[in-house]
Amino acid sequence: MYVIIAYDVNVERVNKVKAYLRTKLTWVQNSLFEGEITEATLLKIKNDLNQIIDEEADSVVIYVFRDKAYISRENMGIIKGSPDEVVI
Amino acid sequence: MYVIIAYDVNVERVNKVKAYLRTKLTWVQNSLFEGEITEATLLKIKNDLNQIIDEEADSVVIYVFRDKAYISRENMGIIKGSPDEVVI
Repeated sequence: MYVIIAYDVNVERVNKVKAYLRTKLTWVQNSLFEGEITEATLLKIKNDLNQIIDEEADSVVIYVFRDKAYISRENMGIIKGSPDEVVI
Repeated sequence: MYVIIAYDVNVERVNKVKAYLRTKLTWVQNSLFEGEITEATLLKIKNDLNQIIDEEADSVVIYVFRDKAYISRENMGIIKGSPDEVVI
């Protein structure tokens, strides 16, 4: 499956969320990641994020697609990340 | 068609982008909007954003879907906006 994850997290936790998601997905731009993962990895991401975020203050939105083919992606301005690039 | 728009824009322009997108789409969370629009509206949004953003410094990502049915959306933590709510 293919996922897009966008987060709106307090500044105290934002670097932790970013560093974590970098290990699983590709960085697109500020607070935005995407990537092809398994259902098991998605479950792990959700469990791990639950340990990092404050559920009373932070917000994470996960868009899930059965197939990347459903998504058409357009960029305006500079391209900060590339979905074809592995971010280490 | 259904679109998700995420932007990573300099602080000088971020409120302008947010205020503009509020007139066309539904606010989901910080720097993230989505909504059902026509192809003509998408074209207008792209033209209008081009007037607002600095192409050398800002980044806007637009995900386009033929049908909202392709998208499954999950939230973690607080829900900041609601896609079923009209934002005025």
